[in-house]
Amino acid sequence: MQASERQTLPAGCVVPAGAERRIEVGLLGATGAVGQQFVRLLAGHPWFQLTWLAASERSAGRRYGDLPWRLAAPLPGAIAALEVEALRPGRGPELVFSALDSSVAGECEEQFAAAGHAVVSNARNHRMDPLVPLLIPEVNPGHLALIERQRAEKGWRGALVTIPNCSTVFLAMALAALRPFEPRRATVTTLQALSGAGYPGVASLDATANVVPFIDGEEQKLETETQKILGTLGAGGVSPHPVAISAQTTRVPVVDGHTEAISVELGVEASHEEVLSAFREFRGEPQELSLPSAPERPLAVHDSPDRPQPRLDVEAFGGMAVHVGRLRRCPALGWKFIALGHNTIRGAAGAGLLIAELLAARGVLAHARAGSLAAHG
Amino acid sequence: MQASERQTLPAGCVVPAGAERRIEVGLLGATGAVGQQFVRLLAGHPWFQLTWLAASERSAGRRYGDLPWRLAAPLPGAIAALEVEALRPGRGPELVFSALDSSVAGECEEQFAAAGHAVVSNARNHRMDPLVPLLIPEVNPGHLALIERQRAEKGWRGALVTIPNCSTVFLAMALAALRPFEPRRATVTTLQALSGAGYPGVASLDATANVVPFIDGEEQKLETETQKILGTLGAGGVSPHPVAISAQTTRVPVVDGHTEAISVELGVEASHEEVLSAFREFRGEPQELSLPSAPERPLAVHDSPDRPQPRLDVEAFGGMAVHVGRLRRCPALGWKFIALGHNTIRGAAGAGLLIAELLAARGVLAHARAGSLAAHG
Amino acid sequence: MQASERQTLPAGCVVPAGAERRIEVGLLGATGAVGQQFVRLLAGHPWFQLTWLAASERSAGRRYGDLPWRLAAPLPGAIAALEVEALRPGRGPELVFSALDSSVAGECEEQFAAAGHAVVSNARNHRMDPLVPLLIPEVNPGHLALIERQRAEKGWRGALVTIPNCSTVFLAMALAALRPFEPRRATVTTLQALSGAGYPGVASLDATANVVPFIDGEEQKLETETQKILGTLGAGGVSPHPVAISAQTTRVPVVDGHTEAISVELGVEASHEEVLSAFREFRGEPQELSLPSAPERPLAVHDSPDRPQPRLDVEAFGGMAVHVGRLRRCPALGWKFIALGHNTIRGAAGAGLLIAELLAARGVLAHARAGSLAAHG
Amino acid sequence: MQASERQTLPAGCVVPAGAERRIEVGLLGATGAVGQQFVRLLAGHPWFQLTWLAASERSAGRRYGDLPWRLAAPLPGAIAALEVEALRPGRGPELVFSALDSSVAGECEEQFAAAGHAVVSNARNHRMDPLVPLLIPEVNPGHLALIERQRAEKGWRGALVTIPNCSTVFLAMALAALRPFEPRRATVTTLQALSGAGYPGVASLDATANVVPFIDGEEQKLETETQKILGTLGAGGVSPHPVAISAQTTRVPVVDGHTEAISVELGVEASHEEVLSAFREFRGEPQELSLPSAPERPLAVHDSPDRPQPRLDVEAFGGMAVHVGRLRRCPALGWKFIALGHNTIRGAAGAGLLIAELLAARGVLAHARAGSLAAHG
Repeated sequence: MQASERQTLPAGCVVPAGAERRIEVGLLGATGAVGQQFVRLLAGHPWFQLTWLAASERSAGRRYGDLPWRLAAPLPGAIAALEVEALRPGRGPELVFSALDSSVAGECEEQFAAAGHAVVSNARNHRMDPLVPLLIPEVNPGHLALIERQRAEKGWRGALVTIPNCSTVFLAMALAALRPFEPRRATVTTLQALSGAGYPGVASLDATANVVPFIDGEEQKLETETQKILGTLGAGGVSPHPVAISAQTTRVPVVDGHTEAISVELGVEASHEEVLSAFREFRGEPQELSLPSAPERPLAVHDSPDRPQPRLDVEAFGGMAVHVGRLRRCPALGWKFIALGHNTIRGAAGAGLLIAELLAARGVLAHARAGSLAAHG
Repeated sequence: MQASERQTLPAGCVVPAGAERRIEVGLLGATGAVGQQFVRLLAGHPWFQLTWLAASERSAGRRYGDLPWRLAAPLPGAIAALEVEALRPGRGPELVFSALDSSVAGECEEQFAAAGHAVVSNARNHRMDPLVPLLIPEVNPGHLALIERQRAEKGWRGALVTIPNCSTVFLAMALAALRPFEPRRATVTTLQALSGAGYPGVASLDATANVVPFIDGEEQKLETETQKILGTLGAGGVSPHPVAISAQTTRVPVVDGHTEAISVELGVEASHEEVLSAFREFRGEPQELSLPSAPERPLAVHDSPDRPQPRLDVEAFGGMAVHVGRLRRCPALGWKFIALGHNTIRGAAGAGLLIAELLAARGVLAHARAGSLAAHG
Repeated sequence: MQASERQTLPAGCVVPAGAERRIEVGLLGATGAVGQQFVRLLAGHPWFQLTWLAASERSAGRRYGDLPWRLAAPLPGAIAALEVEALRPGRGPELVFSALDSSVAGECEEQFAAAGHAVVSNARNHRMDPLVPLLIPEVNPGHLALIERQRAEKGWRGALVTIPNCSTVFLAMALAALRPFEPRRATVTTLQALSGAGYPGVASLDATANVVPFIDGEEQKLETETQKILGTLGAGGVSPHPVAISAQTTRVPVVDGHTEAISVELGVEASHEEVLSAFREFRGEPQELSLPSAPERPLAVHDSPDRPQPRLDVEAFGGMAVHVGRLRRCPALGWKFIALGHNTIRGAAGAGLLIAELLAARGVLAHARAGSLAAHG
Repeated sequence: MQASERQTLPAGCVVPAGAERRIEVGLLGATGAVGQQFVRLLAGHPWFQLTWLAASERSAGRRYGDLPWRLAAPLPGAIAALEVEALRPGRGPELVFSALDSSVAGECEEQFAAAGHAVVSNARNHRMDPLVPLLIPEVNPGHLALIERQRAEKGWRGALVTIPNCSTVFLAMALAALRPFEPRRATVTTLQALSGAGYPGVASLDATANVVPFIDGEEQKLETETQKILGTLGAGGVSPHPVAISAQTTRVPVVDGHTEAISVELGVEASHEEVLSAFREFRGEPQELSLPSAPERPLAVHDSPDRPQPRLDVEAFGGMAVHVGRLRRCPALGWKFIALGHNTIRGAAGAGLLIAELLAARGVLAHARAGSLAAHG
């Protein structure tokens, strides 16, 4: 499914002699909906091996395979056998993914970063922190330079990089392709899938044959995170991109896949073919580096007028492409189109894997060692 | 349910002595999804009595009760007993509703209007005809003056008035309330219900747990019809309102009720309270005249942040109010909000009844007689 | 909607001079999903006036209108203004409905019955108590004689009558009509609506485009409650009916309405027409007494091969009829057919109202007084 | 996904020198919903190569890739390039799958069989023909002996084997495992997915939040086909198994996967563990032969009380296993359980592939040649 699967570890990765030649990784918040997606996507990953699971006190000490598993894909046997540990910084591998709930992620992730872990987090807590990269590897890989400042100013031995909000990823990737034409303002209406709310998430009586025109906090995330992601890193940190974003977010009875109806005003005149080409030819560092989770084309452009559709398209390309269709003139703002992305893959766990792959390829990981920080401390 | 139910016929209506004191009405295209909605809404109407059903050759000659009935509400016994007649102009009452398919509505409705019928049509064929009113009684009742020109220029003895496209009705009513603030441009994303596509309509495999981001022809209707409805009637006909509309229309798995996410730029500065009051206090001729189908308030404003929702709100006020919620500042265009309307009631059959009530109340109907045109010819 | 609406109070009801001529009623567990259904159905009830709401400590002291209201029908203004009281026996009117959760219903309902209240309960706790009637007014009204024994053996001043489990009601009513043919065994597969699980109830990720083939405890309820309802009251209590019931219960993505596929073996030979007539002509005491909530025909028999369907049929007859269709020979057990009922009306709150109407009509209520027990104590 | 993927061709298969070492296959009715499933499953098949597509006149002559493709999986490029041919017997490879509509399958398939093709058909037309095997490779592979009689009595040079109705497959496989306990009668209620009705199939207004308790002709198929499949082949043909089956078939809003609630009476006493073991240990010829599409275990037994569920389980094991769960005592018939199968894979196209693999492995194919019959005629 995934377009580029570079099987060999990047040159910068030091793996202890005798270890399996994969980088050990850990997972904070392993039991929730996003945590399970991380587990699923890490199964069979060519670079990473998931060897350490941590969760809140309630689940700590239990066998992972004894906890409820809510995905259609089977739980890998090797993972099922792991015992869930408590959230103790310094334990576990250097590289940890965080699927922690925002109620605990704030302090916990900081402690892990301080203790030397490279934390790739899906939580919203630190996304807008000026010293924390809010990263889409195709869009703003240069923001990883903030890691040095993090270490300097916060005194962390590790690092913290955040995954943007799911609907933000799809909007930001589409707008990133349009950067040559200087996007000035955009309206976006999202039609978001139920899996975006986790489990149990949305009550079925709210979801069935209904639309809920409100998702708490979601619109602000789209409006501010997009500006940071597209922003420029300077001496004073990231200057937000000047594009004005206005979001209306709704929940619809779809299982996976957020659809977005986007109108955008561009500062530079462009023909239909030029805009379309910008989508089609958009590439980034993950494609140059052939990172394992990178889709060959970050934006999959559809010709058929009734596509993309969540049920037909969202699983294509391993769920890592953002689908774009129906580009046409907008009488109000200039251009309009439809975007679609897989909210739990490209919008969450898959996005985290791609970030981690970029960290590994760039040599940001200090050791990429096969054991826990504690063991090597 | 309906807020104002004036039970007595308007003064201008002449009903033959001895007749039941209701105006007889007919229905063209009685067998389709919209036709059935007309039948349902006319059951027990205080002014109108449905006595004549017509449809294409395939159904003509059959007892209406023997044809498939697809609504949850029961088919009234008196209507079930009627024989469906062929589409012969001059037959049936003066006032006829048309739920004809656009493939036949074009010529057929003209012939009925020529033959002396007052035709209130849900078909799209004549909506943009410069001599045909595209009417929302609360918004542009003055456009009925086009009927005189129709008669003069087309030589019709009767009249033709059209019901706007369903999603257009809800957008136009919301923008009409904002006319004091001079709307300049708007983006609207619709999340449209399945009943809007008729029966069998959308295939269940396209509808289930999915979004189809395309409804053929729908966006153009929203963009052009709204301008005509809000336009000004002058010597040269209706000058379209200058507001630029951009629509993205999608189909979602909802049974009844189109949700619309609207952003609008206003030419006049206004406070949040002023805009909200404009929605709340919006009234029109149907309210002044207390027409039977007129909701007390055309726009029902919701305070709860997660409303309006199709399943909870769309049936309120007899399906004749347009629901508005979540008014807030829009970083791109100034203001944004959610609108919701019942597509087969306020967006189709109910809209037609309200138009017909306005025609009756204004004395546009020549006879409003109890028999067919033929009988009185 | 409802077939028989006897507007005048039954003769036995004593209402204090000067009071509105309706019987005051209270509601335990007013804030949950079933509680809200009771509130909705009691609005405008010709005999009963809801004047007293009680709930657990968490909601006590709050204005009912300030709590979340999850029904499409509007909350009546008079009820919204009521203050929710604590669950204190002896307070409130003699007649109280209980929509309490089973975690608290057990003891609480007993205390209310002991204190003199006539409790009509939807909770499962006391349904199989040999001294408590499990009542469907059309099926086993004679079981009300247990009230005398309750008072004698339990020392209660009031009474407790229970509403069967929702899917049980529909099966038991269909089998009751077949009693002349001596049903011996039956298999039933249910396809149950989401509203049967309350709110938030089933997670949308479990419900969307899915079937969950398990509802905890539901199958046993169908199998044992049906036997008690159809059973014979003798000196030693209710002897369960010997029919063997086997249930498989599933949850399907339907909002309201449980569908049941039933096969039954009869001890008496019967023709297709005889069985059909038994369904059609089934009547009970509610119909003889013209109770306000009684449908004219308890079983609505459908001729069309693809009916009944939840979305088209469940709201008919005020939701109080059980729909039966597709009667045909069963190669395994003799006869098979489809049944459908409205789970929150005929299967819960509406069933409770019908029981209360029967209590009032039979003069079981001691006072039916306009004030609380406390006021009259 | 699939448990056993024997990559090498069976010994009996003669492939012309120089040809790719796969057997060429054709497809009749390539453009419909089932036809597309055959195309999808044949992509990358280790033994078969799809090289010839045929369809009705309307599609003949067109490039396959230019016709609508309705599956989420991408259309393989090599297949997209094929030109659809007319339904001309003698053209195309020896082995052809038929996904023809029953309106044309009757005569057409006979002509292909007469002309020397081995036809594996999903159409219902010939299923109950006494000379045509109705085959589930795990259940009744011996019925392939009918091919000799076909040739003798019908004068065919080729052969015709039929795939059972989708819901029949799942019931018959479960009952086949119980043959040691002599099933005597069974009731089955199906909850069938929308994809079973093809495209456009069920109207979304019938499917959304609804149950349709009727599928035309489906119940009779379950009741008669199961008896033939489980029947015994003797001198006079197949004697139907004496088990009495009673089916009630319903349509529910699920995309893929038919759920079945089954009660069964066994002639032989058995313990819970014995019945469970019969399910668990059920194997057949496809497993012995390690056919490429054969699941390791034909019946996947679930322990969790709320499984199997369509959305979580139906895609497991390549969609080729039948899932069984919730085995327990049935008060009416003895035993009851839930079964679930993938209707378009194990119930249609996948079932056809498994049959074809069995034909190839048994050497029933005369040539398995790389070219068309015509080329080798």
